[in-house]
Amino acid sequence: MVNETNEVDAPRVLRVALLGCGTVGAQVARTMLTQREDLAAKSGCELDLVGVAVHDAGRPRPGIPDELLTDDPEALVADGGADIVIELIGGIDPPRRLVLSAIDRGASVVTANKALLAKHGEEIYAAAEREGVDIYYEAAVAGAIPIVRPLRESLVGDQILTIMGIVNGTTNYILDKMTTEHQDFATALATAQRLGFAEADPTADIEGFDAASKAAILASLAYHSTVRIDDVYREGITGVTSEDIEAAESMGCVIRLLAIARLDEAGRIEVRVHPATVAREHPLAMVQGANNAIFVEAANAGRLMFMGPGAGGSPTASAVTGDLVTVARNRLRGVENPAHSVYQGLPVAPMSETRTRYHLRFQVVDQPGVLAAAAGLLAGNRVSIHSVHQHAPRADDRPTGTAVLSMVTHLAREADVMACIAELERTGYVHGQVRFMRAEGL
Amino acid sequence: MVNETNEVDAPRVLRVALLGCGTVGAQVARTMLTQREDLAAKSGCELDLVGVAVHDAGRPRPGIPDELLTDDPEALVADGGADIVIELIGGIDPPRRLVLSAIDRGASVVTANKALLAKHGEEIYAAAEREGVDIYYEAAVAGAIPIVRPLRESLVGDQILTIMGIVNGTTNYILDKMTTEHQDFATALATAQRLGFAEADPTADIEGFDAASKAAILASLAYHSTVRIDDVYREGITGVTSEDIEAAESMGCVIRLLAIARLDEAGRIEVRVHPATVAREHPLAMVQGANNAIFVEAANAGRLMFMGPGAGGSPTASAVTGDLVTVARNRLRGVENPAHSVYQGLPVAPMSETRTRYHLRFQVVDQPGVLAAAAGLLAGNRVSIHSVHQHAPRADDRPTGTAVLSMVTHLAREADVMACIAELERTGYVHGQVRFMRAEGL
Ligand SMILES: NC(=O)c1ccc[n+]([C@@H]2O[C@H](COP(=O)([O-])OP(=O)(O)OC[C@H]3O[C@@H](n4cnc5c(N)ncnc54)[C@H](OP(=O)(O)O)[C@@H]3O)[C@@H](O)[C@H]2O)c1
Ligand SMILES: NC(=O)c1ccc[n+]([C@@H]2O[C@H](COP(=O)([O-])OP(=O)(O)OC[C@H]3O[C@@H](n4cnc5c(N)ncnc54)[C@H](OP(=O)(O)O)[C@@H]3O)[C@@H](O)[C@H]2O)c1
Repeated sequence: MVNETNEVDAPRVLRVALLGCGTVGAQVARTMLTQREDLAAKSGCELDLVGVAVHDAGRPRPGIPDELLTDDPEALVADGGADIVIELIGGIDPPRRLVLSAIDRGASVVTANKALLAKHGEEIYAAAEREGVDIYYEAAVAGAIPIVRPLRESLVGDQILTIMGIVNGTTNYILDKMTTEHQDFATALATAQRLGFAEADPTADIEGFDAASKAAILASLAYHSTVRIDDVYREGITGVTSEDIEAAESMGCVIRLLAIARLDEAGRIEVRVHPATVAREHPLAMVQGANNAIFVEAANAGRLMFMGPGAGGSPTASAVTGDLVTVARNRLRGVENPAHSVYQGLPVAPMSETRTRYHLRFQVVDQPGVLAAAAGLLAGNRVSIHSVHQHAPRADDRPTGTAVLSMVTHLAREADVMACIAELERTGYVHGQVRFMRAEGL
Repeated sequence: MVNETNEVDAPRVLRVALLGCGTVGAQVARTMLTQREDLAAKSGCELDLVGVAVHDAGRPRPGIPDELLTDDPEALVADGGADIVIELIGGIDPPRRLVLSAIDRGASVVTANKALLAKHGEEIYAAAEREGVDIYYEAAVAGAIPIVRPLRESLVGDQILTIMGIVNGTTNYILDKMTTEHQDFATALATAQRLGFAEADPTADIEGFDAASKAAILASLAYHSTVRIDDVYREGITGVTSEDIEAAESMGCVIRLLAIARLDEAGRIEVRVHPATVAREHPLAMVQGANNAIFVEAANAGRLMFMGPGAGGSPTASAVTGDLVTVARNRLRGVENPAHSVYQGLPVAPMSETRTRYHLRFQVVDQPGVLAAAAGLLAGNRVSIHSVHQHAPRADDRPTGTAVLSMVTHLAREADVMACIAELERTGYVHGQVRFMRAEGL
């Protein structure tokens, strides 16, 4: 602690440069400017905001003195003498360059940039380790929900078996609307955009890229290994139909976009993002609207669940500010925390070898022997059936003389199930496509 | 990080003394002995278990070498040369003496002892600060659920408005049985004891002492102030009747023992433990069996919820081991984390000035004017009524000619409501006791 009689010549002021002043950055700047004293008491020193880099320095920013603004983030990092750099611009470049340059100059870094860390984390963590500075990123996964620190510290003495989370609020909002208000995907997306839950270009969210970045970060932390976004199997929600939602409902399930990381039997990391059915009683099924939730199962700790707002200016800024105080405390005591250990160096399993349960749904000609044939085809591919349900198709949109087969498998290999689907679609008794959905949380 | 070329003369081995080898301690010892390499990789150094103090050193402990056992914890702390002491004996003494002695000898301390911290935290944190050693206690609140670190670090840049938690598994188990299986308190307690969810002497749990210790620790952390167990208003669940449970049910609520810490309008800390009604849709109502859950509302982060196993050997050991690794990492880098800041120094509000909602239930003579009289009495005490329900008493156990009045108030001062209750019981139209239950989570 810094006080008058401290013998060490501890700095009384730390210089902080803020890169980006948008949804999150503006809120961080406001907190730093209006809660100076409180943050000083919590950190043990003054946190002096020395500059705020934006794209358009001419636009006035309420509550932020003009003289702090600059449109030259490179110069702010190079010449600002910052002890701590907070990166809230987003995207890969310029953030990658700026973060590495800050580290090279001996600054500690706080960022919320999951895309950057999921792509270039290895390079950035190594640079931080080399220069002996901190890199903190609590806000990069699930906004205000503390999950990075719990994995990095609280659970570090345990073995993480599974992480399963709803880590993208936009897609959860859309799926929730499709479920509770029976909207189709396009309508639900439009609603989300109108209400500010989805961006004008929603690709990163609905195609699962955002969730995949977070899955990579979670898997890296949980398994002390390098996992990049390209290692993550990814399916978005654009293919989820109202019929899928209804079919899930009739089985007592809802559909959620899940980010999953788990250890498989061979000691490899399974890491994937895709829509999946979840039983209505499962805690993850209860996550409504744009909220996030992460379920962690560990060998000793058992089943833990973390819930809360996964995005938004204020919640995300809360996580960034918590990191800022932690980094400042470390800085004062002249230390850094290990950025990220990769001592386990586990490989990532190919998606084809993932084992989970599957829900298959397809239309068949309604005649004796078809169910037996389909079951035989699955068995021949090492896929065993847990339950099967045959019912008449909806009168309005199906040819007569057909039935719908709905099956839930036991644990099966992805490659085997994909082979079944391809074979089924080639038989004479299956009409059209075989729909499938992975079933999780059982 | 420690490696061959490290210039600093970092220790390669840290000596760890374990005090207590019961439910939690035995599991910690096993983890340390069977996962040496993994813990070494995570900590950056070997963690050498140098001794295990127990009450009865003659009793064999499977998996723990006899030569590590001692029945003299004082000598182990004084002469063991431990860098880290893990205290898992429980209770106030000898743990207080042992922890202070460990700190005086420059050892960092990990403990799960909420009773000790809620009573002597101030003294212990001050000693740790003075000696420059760590004191970590993630396991002291809600077992394996990471809540201490999130409050100490992740949310430190935010302002905590309310913490509301189910932090005692025994009482939650009992209340859950009373609700779902309509057992009375005595039967539910006996079931809990038979199944190992309650101890032979259940006082600490059912009278709310355990929850009150945790409430004190949470309030201290959230409000950077000194809050002791004696500052916590405490009511246990021994007075909760099957009728209370039914009455709550008829209003769409369940009864939970809650630990609550919040900032009141005057900037004081409200800190209390008591049974309360919670709406069935509230996340805290969904916490079943012996699980724990903590709900945190912060100014920026919004509403967060943490759920999981709040006790048990393995979950608690998981939290202790996480602390052990963190403390070891700090030790290697020659630093400690600020034990506990009390810079806000906020006062605790007296219970009489707490403001919450109340559910009142009492029997009245069934005649015109009684409702008006009761409402007038409340109004005269500044208590306004949100909703009221009058119904006939259950045929089997009430005199005829009476009715039951059930009222929910708006926010009201505790002292005013207690005055109403006393006055109501003195009127001629109220029969017997006025039952009340505070209503939370609205
Ligand atoms: N928004 C959320 O809810 C949320 C949640 C979790 C994590 N995050 C992450 O937080 C980061 C920031 O997100 P955001 O929503 O705050 O973004 P945003 O609203 O788009 O703000 C971006 C900011 O960066 C500035 N900027 C853009 N290009 C720049 C450049 N070349 N040089 C200097 N400044 C530049 C912009 O300047 P102008 O103001 O002049 O345009 C703006 O102030 C991203 O990594 C995002 O993934 C966001
Ligand atoms: N159990 C849980 O689920 C849980 C959860 C959260 C926190 N905690 C906390 O963790 C701590 C330990 O709990 P526990 O359940 O593991 O307790 P426990 O099972 O009763 O074990 C206590 C241990 O301390 C030893 N001991 C007792 N008095 C001693 C003395 N004077 N000198 C040396 N050793 C002594 C006992 O020795 P013997 O083995 O010879 O009897 C035993 O090994 C407590 O502070 C508790 O509040 C427990």
